Amino acid sequence: MLRVALFGCGRIGQVHARSIAGHDDAELAWVCDPVLPAAQTLAARLGGHATDNVAQVLADPDVDAVVIASPTPTHIDLLSRATLAGKPVLCEKPIDLDLARIDQCWSDIAGLRPFVMMGFNRRFDPTFTQIRRRVGAGEIGTLRALRITSRDPEPPPRAYVVSSGGIFRDMTIHDFDLARYFLGEIAEVQAFTADDGNEMLAAEGDAHQAMVLLRSRSGALCTITNSRSCVFGYDQRVEAFGDNGMLEAGNQTSSSVRASGPFGAEASDTYLRFFVERYRDAYLAEFDEFVHAVREQRQPSPGFADGRAALVLAEAAIESAATGRTVTVSPHLTDGVLT
Amino acid sequence: MLRVALFGCGRIGQVHARSIAGHDDAELAWVCDPVLPAAQTLAARLGGHATDNVAQVLADPDVDAVVIASPTPTHIDLLSRATLAGKPVLCEKPIDLDLARIDQCWSDIAGLRPFVMMGFNRRFDPTFTQIRRRVGAGEIGTLRALRITSRDPEPPPRAYVVSSGGIFRDMTIHDFDLARYFLGEIAEVQAFTADDGNEMLAAEGDAHQAMVLLRSRSGALCTITNSRSCVFGYDQRVEAFGDNGMLEAGNQTSSSVRASGPFGAEASDTYLRFFVERYRDAYLAEFDEFVHAVREQRQPSPGFADGRAALVLAEAAIESAATGRTVTVSPHLTDGVLT
Amino acid sequence: MLRVALFGCGRIGQVHARSIAGHDDAELAWVCDPVLPAAQTLAARLGGHATDNVAQVLADPDVDAVVIASPTPTHIDLLSRATLAGKPVLCEKPIDLDLARIDQCWSDIAGLRPFVMMGFNRRFDPTFTQIRRRVGAGEIGTLRALRITSRDPEPPPRAYVVSSGGIFRDMTIHDFDLARYFLGEIAEVQAFTADDGNEMLAAEGDAHQAMVLLRSRSGALCTITNSRSCVFGYDQRVEAFGDNGMLEAGNQTSSSVRASGPFGAEASDTYLRFFVERYRDAYLAEFDEFVHAVREQRQPSPGFADGRAALVLAEAAIESAATGRTVTVSPHLTDGVLT
Amino acid sequence: MLRVALFGCGRIGQVHARSIAGHDDAELAWVCDPVLPAAQTLAARLGGHATDNVAQVLADPDVDAVVIASPTPTHIDLLSRATLAGKPVLCEKPIDLDLARIDQCWSDIAGLRPFVMMGFNRRFDPTFTQIRRRVGAGEIGTLRALRITSRDPEPPPRAYVVSSGGIFRDMTIHDFDLARYFLGEIAEVQAFTADDGNEMLAAEGDAHQAMVLLRSRSGALCTITNSRSCVFGYDQRVEAFGDNGMLEAGNQTSSSVRASGPFGAEASDTYLRFFVERYRDAYLAEFDEFVHAVREQRQPSPGFADGRAALVLAEAAIESAATGRTVTVSPHLTDGVLT
Repeated sequence: MLRVALFGCGRIGQVHARSIAGHDDAELAWVCDPVLPAAQTLAARLGGHATDNVAQVLADPDVDAVVIASPTPTHIDLLSRATLAGKPVLCEKPIDLDLARIDQCWSDIAGLRPFVMMGFNRRFDPTFTQIRRRVGAGEIGTLRALRITSRDPEPPPRAYVVSSGGIFRDMTIHDFDLARYFLGEIAEVQAFTADDGNEMLAAEGDAHQAMVLLRSRSGALCTITNSRSCVFGYDQRVEAFGDNGMLEAGNQTSSSVRASGPFGAEASDTYLRFFVERYRDAYLAEFDEFVHAVREQRQPSPGFADGRAALVLAEAAIESAATGRTVTVSPHLTDGVLT
Repeated sequence: MLRVALFGCGRIGQVHARSIAGHDDAELAWVCDPVLPAAQTLAARLGGHATDNVAQVLADPDVDAVVIASPTPTHIDLLSRATLAGKPVLCEKPIDLDLARIDQCWSDIAGLRPFVMMGFNRRFDPTFTQIRRRVGAGEIGTLRALRITSRDPEPPPRAYVVSSGGIFRDMTIHDFDLARYFLGEIAEVQAFTADDGNEMLAAEGDAHQAMVLLRSRSGALCTITNSRSCVFGYDQRVEAFGDNGMLEAGNQTSSSVRASGPFGAEASDTYLRFFVERYRDAYLAEFDEFVHAVREQRQPSPGFADGRAALVLAEAAIESAATGRTVTVSPHLTDGVLT
Repeated sequence: MLRVALFGCGRIGQVHARSIAGHDDAELAWVCDPVLPAAQTLAARLGGHATDNVAQVLADPDVDAVVIASPTPTHIDLLSRATLAGKPVLCEKPIDLDLARIDQCWSDIAGLRPFVMMGFNRRFDPTFTQIRRRVGAGEIGTLRALRITSRDPEPPPRAYVVSSGGIFRDMTIHDFDLARYFLGEIAEVQAFTADDGNEMLAAEGDAHQAMVLLRSRSGALCTITNSRSCVFGYDQRVEAFGDNGMLEAGNQTSSSVRASGPFGAEASDTYLRFFVERYRDAYLAEFDEFVHAVREQRQPSPGFADGRAALVLAEAAIESAATGRTVTVSPHLTDGVLT
Repeated sequence: MLRVALFGCGRIGQVHARSIAGHDDAELAWVCDPVLPAAQTLAARLGGHATDNVAQVLADPDVDAVVIASPTPTHIDLLSRATLAGKPVLCEKPIDLDLARIDQCWSDIAGLRPFVMMGFNRRFDPTFTQIRRRVGAGEIGTLRALRITSRDPEPPPRAYVVSSGGIFRDMTIHDFDLARYFLGEIAEVQAFTADDGNEMLAAEGDAHQAMVLLRSRSGALCTITNSRSCVFGYDQRVEAFGDNGMLEAGNQTSSSVRASGPFGAEASDTYLRFFVERYRDAYLAEFDEFVHAVREQRQPSPGFADGRAALVLAEAAIESAATGRTVTVSPHLTDGVLT
């Protein structure tokens, strides 16, 4: 059994806790959170000791691996200390909101044979995985155009917005990573944003929607469409168009029930509500890959460099939205530091 | 140009009038209806002379063909007289509600080289035609099971019900013919009916819904599901299941627009409202086939024998619903008289 | 924790073993199978002791409940002995193939306050459950017509066919129960079968497909369509039609991916392969309901009477298929013995 | 009857010829083409006189209106001369490939009370029209994001490419107009193109695909996705996303038939092949609107200014694709000349 320590008891921390506790080859060893009662409640339900003491957890020789699901500003510190303690790490995105800090972190830990897997859950979604496999198998010929749609059911609270780094860093970052998952390295970025009249977001200098164009180094194009709210639910779609066909991942409904009535016909059931429901299987598969990578002592994917690359694209989108120019993402910015 | 005389100016008569007037190789020569002003209005709009005198029409040597769209009780008389006058006939279903009269009619006209095409419009629907062609081409292997769903938007008025001969003769008759179109001759019939609490229908001894099982001579099975009302529109579906696959004709929507909102997701547009809209192309194709058959002096299909066979199945269903027994449709009843 | 003893290690036994081992409030106490190594393998993987000794299991005071997933001929003996030992039972369908034995069983155990839940898994399928709930809430008005489609991917082996009791007892029995789940008691049954040229089935006197009409006591009608093979997978659909609308449970695909290519457009992913995949959630929900009913000491549903009623309908269908007559299911046959 | 003269007998000219000949209130008076036999063939089939003499046509006092479906370089000359002759004009897009010539044309004819309707057929497509009407009625709240997908089945021949003005002027121009139809005036344009390895297009300096971002003056965003080839057919979709819902116009299939087989399940029929099939109803509605506008002596929509505005957006996209900058479309460029 892989004994796993979890940092962070919030919504996403609880998702990881269930993945750990429910995995055949893993168990929850520690739940660590500055709010001790929260850690205690979670540990009581799913196993492990509760603490608010990071050092105690990392000093435990029985801890085989670490999952970081705490607030973003704590990621680099925890990731560095865990690596120093020789623990493999699964870290929620983003590594950090500041590229310089990320690069500093890497130069600090690079010599320690770091094992850092990034929590880009969508890479493990069965529909996206299937599309990538079928594209890779040549089913639709050369992939020419990718379309990613990602809309949240409703905007985050102001408290989140003020510290999230903005829509490109907190939301589109998933789509940037998904674009790289399908297309490889990105060469150019263009972006538009709009506040759609949302006063809170406008006041905080953030956007309500974003549209992004990407060009990959291989020459494929990509659009990303984001919105911070979507009245009909969590809108998560991918469309891969190639010389020989198209593969689409449509939205997923709560059931296969369709209704017809005086109002109209063949209405599908509602969509799965939000990421916990929509990506339930993805979180399980992600943690399972983490367990396997640790066991087999191989580099995990997506790794630290992928976490950094997604943020580089977010920075490029921010610049493009501000200047109206296509931003070229030069290779050394994307991955030079890390190779 | 094929000069066509039309008998009957009601809803279905007007459908035929438009088919005739809109056909490149045909024109409306006469519109004949006992209600002369109705005939005059239609003729003024779509061409031809108006009259209430059947004899005058049939005596006109310039009339090349006849379409009978008048009330059912008049069919046999018009069909016989038109045949006697040497005119090819397209006759709305049913030939008559009484099998003995049908057989008498046939023995009266059989020696006159009758040309009688029956207006089973669904045989000409592009979706059903396509399914039959693909089944015939072996795409789904041997056809084993057929499912026909046919629900009207709302019940007919009492005036229609009292003279229609009941649900099997006025509504299911279309489905019986469609079953024969796909499966060939039918060997056995079972049927259930229910009044669904509709007091008018119950008072008239008629049913609101019907479910029928058929076994074809070739061994395939078939279900027919009918309802006299359907709150979401005209429900017209066919499902053909075979050893190697399935072909379904779903309902047809007014457009390809889908709506999502707070109420749910991906609701299709409403269905095409009723037979005039849903089978618009079928009526055109039916009349086109009539024109071609007349021009090429070949026997039309579906013909008189098909019209009789559908009524035989309706009689069998009525008997089955009344007695609870499977009714065997013996060959000589189905087609003996006519071969 | 509810300590559960499992009888039977075959395919369905393994499904139950996983439900038990994966349930938060239950654990596998015993795995009992005449083939001891099979029991040992399963117990080693999912917990509990392995044995081939029924008496030993039922004598264990730590066993809180029993799941019977052994071959049909053993059901009554195990069910009776478990009840005698005071253990709550979850028993796979059917209770038995012989109605007289079922009634004898009941008179033997009726005085013992039996707790017998029948394993009609489809009652716990989230889509069917949802439709029943929405129908019950009046969303589509009075339910008038139910359509159940159930096709297996491929025919069972001859060994199964010779002892299964035929298509109505081994396959349609699920649909009879589902019909009762939606419609309540059934009043009349009509049935057609065909062997579709399958020589093995014909040789054993069994059918390859069946079509059934039911009339419920409340007046609603129902069709059931079965086939023992289906080249495109496990075809499991329900359509509930009422005065104010329709609710359909369509087939469930392996993913939401749709493919378009030179071959055509918008092809869905393949269907979930067979019952283990399609009804995975249903088996979990079924076992969960069993746990709750045991804990709360309330009568489980579906119970012994439901297991008997489904067999009564199978017998009626067999009679109807043989005689061509509608078989009336009189009340005392359905539930008289058990009330 | 409106007597209409048609200039141009190519593919789109024939589409218009059928619209004219099939319209209840119009007829084909002249077919004019420099290739006289082509004009003669078409006139023989659908009516009217054939000629290669433009002056003769425009001098005919019995000509009530003119449809220009000749090659793009001839549009301005024909449009100007027809206007000078006092004839209402329906002109295929684009007016011209050169903005300066367009503006010169307008200053030449502006004093003549010109009646110029532009042939942007998609504005008359029933699905797009329906979406616009429902958006206008407030069904999805404020429209925030529009997505237009337009892919042709296969690339045009080299002969077309060398004179078409490139993908933005010959293909995206339809989508620019559609964006204006839904969003009103456009403020900013960004664009990416790729040749997708197509050597002919690359040699001619043209693109195989394009992706465009637009921001409307009202603040809504829009993406346009184009491809010059699409192996599964003509891909024409619109998605309108607003605060309160989404309306999508999906692709249209040749029939409602769905196929399932060993290959998979629920494959739709093929898409309508190309614009003649997909926009058949749109061309009829467009011509019908032309007839009504002429009869009622009101300004047609879309008009000359709309034709010019779409070209302005094409120019902006060309500039953006070349420079990597967002191009601001200033008001006086879009419509100043014409107001």
